[in-house]
Amino acid sequence: MNLEETIPIDPKRPLILVTNDDGITSLGIRTLVEVMLKLGNVVVVAPNSPQSGMGHAITIGEPLRLYSTELFAEVDEYECSGTPADCVKLAKHYVLKDRAPDLVVSGINHGSNSSISVLYSGTMSAAIEAAIEGIPAIGFSLCDYREQANFEHVKEYVYSITKMALENGIPKGVALNVNFPALSDVPIKGVKICRQANAKWQEKFDYRKDPYGRGYLWMSGDFVNFDHDKEDTDEWALANNYVSVVPCQYDLTSYPALESIAHWVNQEVV
Amino acid sequence: MNLEETIPIDPKRPLILVTNDDGITSLGIRTLVEVMLKLGNVVVVAPNSPQSGMGHAITIGEPLRLYSTELFAEVDEYECSGTPADCVKLAKHYVLKDRAPDLVVSGINHGSNSSISVLYSGTMSAAIEAAIEGIPAIGFSLCDYREQANFEHVKEYVYSITKMALENGIPKGVALNVNFPALSDVPIKGVKICRQANAKWQEKFDYRKDPYGRGYLWMSGDFVNFDHDKEDTDEWALANNYVSVVPCQYDLTSYPALESIAHWVNQEVV
Repeated sequence: MNLEETIPIDPKRPLILVTNDDGITSLGIRTLVEVMLKLGNVVVVAPNSPQSGMGHAITIGEPLRLYSTELFAEVDEYECSGTPADCVKLAKHYVLKDRAPDLVVSGINHGSNSSISVLYSGTMSAAIEAAIEGIPAIGFSLCDYREQANFEHVKEYVYSITKMALENGIPKGVALNVNFPALSDVPIKGVKICRQANAKWQEKFDYRKDPYGRGYLWMSGDFVNFDHDKEDTDEWALANNYVSVVPCQYDLTSYPALESIAHWVNQEVV
Repeated sequence: MNLEETIPIDPKRPLILVTNDDGITSLGIRTLVEVMLKLGNVVVVAPNSPQSGMGHAITIGEPLRLYSTELFAEVDEYECSGTPADCVKLAKHYVLKDRAPDLVVSGINHGSNSSISVLYSGTMSAAIEAAIEGIPAIGFSLCDYREQANFEHVKEYVYSITKMALENGIPKGVALNVNFPALSDVPIKGVKICRQANAKWQEKFDYRKDPYGRGYLWMSGDFVNFDHDKEDTDEWALANNYVSVVPCQYDLTSYPALESIAHWVNQEVV
């Protein structure tokens, strides 16, 4: 940790914290840093190893490691042994000494985080963690899982969406979940603001034996979209070559359910 | 894995899947199994190690281990190397061969999962995973972190809340987040149906050096409740010795934000 030798911050430019869940060496975060440097001062605090599927996990009961890195130019950068949510906490309260960045961006994830995947996503949990801290936040994901996925066609959208977020703000308590179609022959048609599609992963388990004769299971799954014909969803937008933007909140309360349950519980338990 | 020698299931009794995040040997899950056996047939699939703070993490890119255990009587029971959300997936699609249980209960967690902690909670992520599968689900947590926490005073509430959920059902896509006050001189006053309080953890990082001279950080935090005087919140209920019940949903879309963002994005990007 070499926190003294930081890059000077230009007070006229916004301070942007960059993190991800694929790890600090991934192509996705390199692309994101490249675009963010056009918009502001950049600090990177990102996991030192892939953290896909980590959801909103945080590190409890174990210490964290934080080391400065030299992967980027003109950037204060640190790799962390923790989860994406840990990185945001560590960045704000330790690296930045409780100074809140003007924006937190996470990604660009190698793989979709649309619809139900938002719950399992380390990328989006970092953005939601920032929203909890009251910081405007955006998670970016590309619908291409490959390590060498092509991010070139989405750079202009990452730039313009971030610029608008900086200029217009994001409602308090909200983080944007932005997903991009993978590169194809069809150019991206534009941006759709949408809701999270109602979908799930239908798991399958593949039972095998290890060289010691002990059983183990591989989990895989098929994506099932219950909203496949609904044009207001992120899945529809992506399938039709739009960039999907879903505003996400961290208040999980189901207000419609509140009344129906209050009825039967109050009646019988209180 | 000894999946053939299962306890016969009485078709007249509901099938209840029990999981948790503190691990299959914890006192909280033993208490939960004891109460559930009064209500139905019980299958346990729970982590083989503590998984606190795992949020909605799932295991991607690594295989899972599943072993049968003999910790309980009259129960089909398995320990799993994965996260709480993995346990629910594995239970439904592998152990129960795609038969959906009538109810999934998770806990009883050693420690609160009220307000913002619901996002970091493995206990509640298991319940929410069940809701995604269309299965009624309840996460139970006691506001006492100790390994030897006293669960005696909450058994009657676990029983009655579960019984009502079985009889009345839980709205589709919803899981209940139930938190109990720790044992004290004041008896529990009853049950309050409430919303998730707006709160956060204000982190602190304690920098130390290991015996090799390398730095490491302990994350800890203070709980900050922005809704401390709001009587409709879970934090208020618990502080006033009520059991809190919050219906939680997995659709994270912020519908109020949808419009305000659609306005500026559509205007400038599409």
